[in-house]
Amino acid sequence: MTAPLRLGIAGLGTVGVGVVRLIQEEAALIAARAGRSIEITAVSARDRKKNRDVDLSGYAWEDDPVKLAQRPDVDVFVELMGGDSGPAKAATEAAIAAGKDVVTANKALLAHHGQALAEAAEAAGAVIRFEAAVAGGIPVIKALMEGLGANRIKRVMGVMNGTCNYILTRMESAGLPYETVFEEARSLGYLEADPSLDVDGIDAGHKLSLLASIAFGTRVSFDAVELEGIGRIDIADIRYAGDMGYRIKLLGVAQTTGRGLEQRMSPCLVPVESPLAQLNGGTNMVIIEGAASGQIVLRGAGAGEGPTASAVMGDVLDLARGVRYPVFGQPASTLAEPVAASVAAPAPFYIRMQVQDKPGALAKVATVMGDAGISIDRMRQHGNEAETAPVLIVTHRCTREALDYALSQLPQTGVLAGDPVAIRIEAL
Amino acid sequence: MTAPLRLGIAGLGTVGVGVVRLIQEEAALIAARAGRSIEITAVSARDRKKNRDVDLSGYAWEDDPVKLAQRPDVDVFVELMGGDSGPAKAATEAAIAAGKDVVTANKALLAHHGQALAEAAEAAGAVIRFEAAVAGGIPVIKALMEGLGANRIKRVMGVMNGTCNYILTRMESAGLPYETVFEEARSLGYLEADPSLDVDGIDAGHKLSLLASIAFGTRVSFDAVELEGIGRIDIADIRYAGDMGYRIKLLGVAQTTGRGLEQRMSPCLVPVESPLAQLNGGTNMVIIEGAASGQIVLRGAGAGEGPTASAVMGDVLDLARGVRYPVFGQPASTLAEPVAASVAAPAPFYIRMQVQDKPGALAKVATVMGDAGISIDRMRQHGNEAETAPVLIVTHRCTREALDYALSQLPQTGVLAGDPVAIRIEAL
Repeated sequence: MTAPLRLGIAGLGTVGVGVVRLIQEEAALIAARAGRSIEITAVSARDRKKNRDVDLSGYAWEDDPVKLAQRPDVDVFVELMGGDSGPAKAATEAAIAAGKDVVTANKALLAHHGQALAEAAEAAGAVIRFEAAVAGGIPVIKALMEGLGANRIKRVMGVMNGTCNYILTRMESAGLPYETVFEEARSLGYLEADPSLDVDGIDAGHKLSLLASIAFGTRVSFDAVELEGIGRIDIADIRYAGDMGYRIKLLGVAQTTGRGLEQRMSPCLVPVESPLAQLNGGTNMVIIEGAASGQIVLRGAGAGEGPTASAVMGDVLDLARGVRYPVFGQPASTLAEPVAASVAAPAPFYIRMQVQDKPGALAKVATVMGDAGISIDRMRQHGNEAETAPVLIVTHRCTREALDYALSQLPQTGVLAGDPVAIRIEAL
Repeated sequence: MTAPLRLGIAGLGTVGVGVVRLIQEEAALIAARAGRSIEITAVSARDRKKNRDVDLSGYAWEDDPVKLAQRPDVDVFVELMGGDSGPAKAATEAAIAAGKDVVTANKALLAHHGQALAEAAEAAGAVIRFEAAVAGGIPVIKALMEGLGANRIKRVMGVMNGTCNYILTRMESAGLPYETVFEEARSLGYLEADPSLDVDGIDAGHKLSLLASIAFGTRVSFDAVELEGIGRIDIADIRYAGDMGYRIKLLGVAQTTGRGLEQRMSPCLVPVESPLAQLNGGTNMVIIEGAASGQIVLRGAGAGEGPTASAVMGDVLDLARGVRYPVFGQPASTLAEPVAASVAAPAPFYIRMQVQDKPGALAKVATVMGDAGISIDRMRQHGNEAETAPVLIVTHRCTREALDYALSQLPQTGVLAGDPVAIRIEAL
């Protein structure tokens, strides 16, 4: 048997402790599959004294993760601290400079510095693996980079933030407004310290930018991700969308169109019978559409100790078996600078507006839509006793420009109360 | 760039032609990801003159696949002929004897001879890869063997025969009996030349035996798969199961219980809201339950030119990148001889019987169930004008022995018309 593979683990939060525990509990099984034993030689975290309910006595301790990364008895630096700068970045760079392989769960770091880190790693003959950075326990990076690696990818999309999915499904099931469920999620500890990472789609956007790079052979370009959070989703839209046969999900979509690479993380309507609509709570789903493979759907826990540790250790297993290839699936030097799509691909849209209940009002609305070149698939008016009534429209496929033009013209009809709301419908 | 990887392809049916086409169409993309070009040097098939609508002029032709496998200008033997013996077996053995790697879509060959072939390959320093043998385009072997490789697997299950799934979903949607839909499927060309491979669960059982070997570190043991086909599924059961909140699927389940390794391929009821129940037509789904990862669901096309070629080429890509590890994930010599579970794990069951519509009849049925130690979760009697009425029972979890005892006693109550029907309910 080959020599043991020696890990240095930086970060002993939920995921770090999960990795330690998995190695301790399944040592024999993992060694049988890896063809060699996997050992932890040293660990590092902010607070040495914290009780973590796991035995760390067999491992050297380093206060400084950079020192950990440089230890001669560490073959693989496992970075589980998080953060797009600071110690995580410094220690990852130190590991690479020392020619060590890196396994990381850090989506923010890679979304912001992926290209530079990949170039440095490849120059140093090191490998960076990051399965745990996207969709928790689902082996989606592996599916995209390896199993489906012979496919021209047409679209990759996914629900990749469990907190947002929890909030949206809870709003629907309990009929509660966003603000109430947001506070619930906060008190349950579901939200990041900075909740905007979750609810503004930033965390999920980081993940999408990594998938897009692999799928389309482009440099990671998080700044080009069009981000829209879930904070403006009205419980009314969740209800009306349901009536029309849709659910609202915070959905990431990456695809190449004639106009470049489109990367969007935004609330979308998906058909209620689609796999995406079935997702409840913290479950994640990624859908990969390959030219040859067709649509491949992957579903599983998007976070948590066990699932994330499973993903980290899948990468470690590969390294133990000697699997080595470039960080984003092809040499970093060959990744193209993405041309951000100036305009998203045409799509159908859901539009809700409050219209005065008087003769001719609907005709005015329909005229504006027609003048904008938008054809209407379905229109529904909900009757009530008030002076205005909600009108719901599902359009046929149209461009965002046409939609924006219509949205700007609708208030000028003088028959609306308030502004119309529009949400993209993602075809599946 | 490294030297090209040279393939010899044996078998030019749908899948073989798909692989040729994929290599021709995506050569540049695949080379970028593989770090080297992938070339076809020679091909082989039964009939050289057949028009295959793909340009084969650049490749050497071999009538004999054994000769193809032995060619010095072939690095990887790609076996797409099928069959558990004959030329496929001879050529695969020849390739291994010549020290060449093998990529195959042949589930029957591996289900019957997997252990011997793995031992031969490992002795010769060769690798056998078989992603395309299970669940078409879904990278499920890779997920199980690599991405989830640090997990103790608790259960692996799946719907892995598209033809059976087509028949069952068509019976439900059209309300047609099995025989009618079977003939439809035959005339549409969905069935194998020997239809029993499909409808008796043999093909899906082959696939399950491969997954079980990887999941549990045991020798492939197809003979130990408990097989039950779909031929006895009555349209009435599809309807009544639907009324009770279930759908019927030909479901493979492999799990280790206290009593050994259980491998079953049989019609099961699954809750209508579960991902398995959503599967229509030829789509496949595999569910892997890891101790750390939790439940991972993979879904995609289970057959067809593009999806299967995608899986074959995923394996070729790995070989081009230098990925090498034992055939079933750990050395063949370390795979344990599985102890077949003498008895399946306890489960709830659906039971349908035709009961005489007279006082005391139901009480007699309930007494038999109680005497067998089976507790009833739900019972439903469908009223009608006839002398007998269907009675449906969903039991709580019970052993198969208890169930079989109850089934043997029920007719002795004298209140039944015909024999009762029982179908396992797989908990999800």
